[in-house]
Amino acid sequence: MQENKFKISLFLGGGQSGKSLFAENCAKKWHHVVYYATGGLVEKSPEWEFRIQNHRARRPEHWKTIEHPVPLEEVVKYCEEQKTEVLLVDCLTLWMGWQMALNIQNYSPFQLLKHLENETQHFINQLKILSCPVLVVSNEVGEGVIPGSESGRIFREALGNMNLAVGSLAQCITFSIAGQHLLLKNMSQNFINGFCPMGIVDENFIFTELNKDPLVGENNVNK
Amino acid sequence: MQENKFKISLFLGGGQSGKSLFAENCAKKWHHVVYYATGGLVEKSPEWEFRIQNHRARRPEHWKTIEHPVPLEEVVKYCEEQKTEVLLVDCLTLWMGWQMALNIQNYSPFQLLKHLENETQHFINQLKILSCPVLVVSNEVGEGVIPGSESGRIFREALGNMNLAVGSLAQCITFSIAGQHLLLKNMSQNFINGFCPMGIVDENFIFTELNKDPLVGENNVNK
Amino acid sequence: MQENKFKISLFLGGGQSGKSLFAENCAKKWHHVVYYATGGLVEKSPEWEFRIQNHRARRPEHWKTIEHPVPLEEVVKYCEEQKTEVLLVDCLTLWMGWQMALNIQNYSPFQLLKHLENETQHFINQLKILSCPVLVVSNEVGEGVIPGSESGRIFREALGNMNLAVGSLAQCITFSIAGQHLLLKNMSQNFINGFCPMGIVDENFIFTELNKDPLVGENNVNK
Repeated sequence: MQENKFKISLFLGGGQSGKSLFAENCAKKWHHVVYYATGGLVEKSPEWEFRIQNHRARRPEHWKTIEHPVPLEEVVKYCEEQKTEVLLVDCLTLWMGWQMALNIQNYSPFQLLKHLENETQHFINQLKILSCPVLVVSNEVGEGVIPGSESGRIFREALGNMNLAVGSLAQCITFSIAGQHLLLKNMSQNFINGFCPMGIVDENFIFTELNKDPLVGENNVNK
Repeated sequence: MQENKFKISLFLGGGQSGKSLFAENCAKKWHHVVYYATGGLVEKSPEWEFRIQNHRARRPEHWKTIEHPVPLEEVVKYCEEQKTEVLLVDCLTLWMGWQMALNIQNYSPFQLLKHLENETQHFINQLKILSCPVLVVSNEVGEGVIPGSESGRIFREALGNMNLAVGSLAQCITFSIAGQHLLLKNMSQNFINGFCPMGIVDENFIFTELNKDPLVGENNVNK
Repeated sequence: MQENKFKISLFLGGGQSGKSLFAENCAKKWHHVVYYATGGLVEKSPEWEFRIQNHRARRPEHWKTIEHPVPLEEVVKYCEEQKTEVLLVDCLTLWMGWQMALNIQNYSPFQLLKHLENETQHFINQLKILSCPVLVVSNEVGEGVIPGSESGRIFREALGNMNLAVGSLAQCITFSIAGQHLLLKNMSQNFINGFCPMGIVDENFIFTELNKDPLVGENNVNK
């Protein structure tokens, strides 16, 4: 059983904050990388294609890319079989967008929130099975005015709750702003009188943190 | 006169950032807690009820809850009479939503902004009367695209200005992201060459800060 | 050639975060200040007039104000001729708003994004010509839910990319929240084991950083 050894680094940030590029630079510290693109064809527009192509062009050719709609279960199975060194999931935002699109017709708003909560828990349970570290990219979407549309409000709440849930398990959380990466949580952090100094980190920091033995830091994991 | 002894801690963050839970955990460090719920019945929807119920379930039973539309004046009077140890106001966002809803028909946009500014000043003056510390929860709503609707823009501006005004008086400001709480201001902070180190804090830090004598740190209060 | 000596400080933040006031307080550390107001008359509304008047009232009278639609080229020429000590550009958000307004009818969404990218590069090239430091104010607009409108999405992406581009060249980046100014990048920062401590800064810090010889710190500039 590897369940209590899972290692997660959560790469949060707004749009165009540099969070995906940072997660990719972290993943390049390993060799056998699986890139799970949750976007697939969520939206057919020139702006979308342009962004996807830019993302693709900067990924090393030796990475194995698996795209939505392949479910996370199969990705995890593949990683375990292939002795993958690191899994990069980019991103929870688009994954949640798919869950919304697939289910919004079938449920009342209240039921939809509950359903998304269950899907989130299922997703996280899969991540916990992995023997290799996982780098998870997600958007901060809760710092603007509350959306006028009900679907916008549900999305904001469901993704925010997913970020909280993944963050509570993660060894590392960073928050990217304008290409700078603010550390919010790490395994070896030490609170003195309720205070723990923080700062800006680079890919070497994340790589080193995820290579530490998580069992040594388990108090922090459960904190 | 207690006016220059008021102690405020401002708990800022986006939606689902963990700011309310953090403020509650801070409040639990005291015993006689008054919880001022500004939301009341701002909106009748299943998603709203679900969120309210979750919030209620995690509050200790011995806390005294006072809900909107009871005005802050009466809450402050109650706290003074009952020797309350800490007042938790959750949240300015919903309070401002009420001020908007009550006044949007009566004023032009320009007048509405001025009116909200006056109401904000009145609210803050009430907080200054309190002998006990006050924990104030509010949303960051200004980091998305400017809303298309005029009411959205006015709300964003009025709440942003209220956060600035409360923050300028506060001994402590934290900004929550994904369950982590970044310290932005504290009473005993010390700038060296224009720089003051910051970090992540927990409830012990906030409790300790608010139990310090504010008069010692009054230069910071007025800064 | 002064091209590799340019000094930029980027003042990021949400609406009503205190970023403009902070940039102005930094600019007051110099005497010969040119203030480039990119807003002009982007929108004729009482709320807008009110905000513009508040901004104007707090600027020293001896500052030279140049307003949109004067293009940056002429502002830069003026600064060079007049031995200006610092240029304050407030803000990229409104500048981008103008670029959108002028071009949205002429281009497809894909072309518009490319056009805005070119305009951004042209703008940055102008800043690089300056002999004096430049303080650049911009909004974080990417931390809310993705806008429903295509123009909102393009604006969010184009401004986010501009913030990334300016930030990658900047000696200093700060992010303002509720009147507090979090340092995200500075010229003399030093990563140890991938970590660089960060904190809150004031105007003295920014002034001192921008008066350092940038050539000494050029490795950081290109990082």
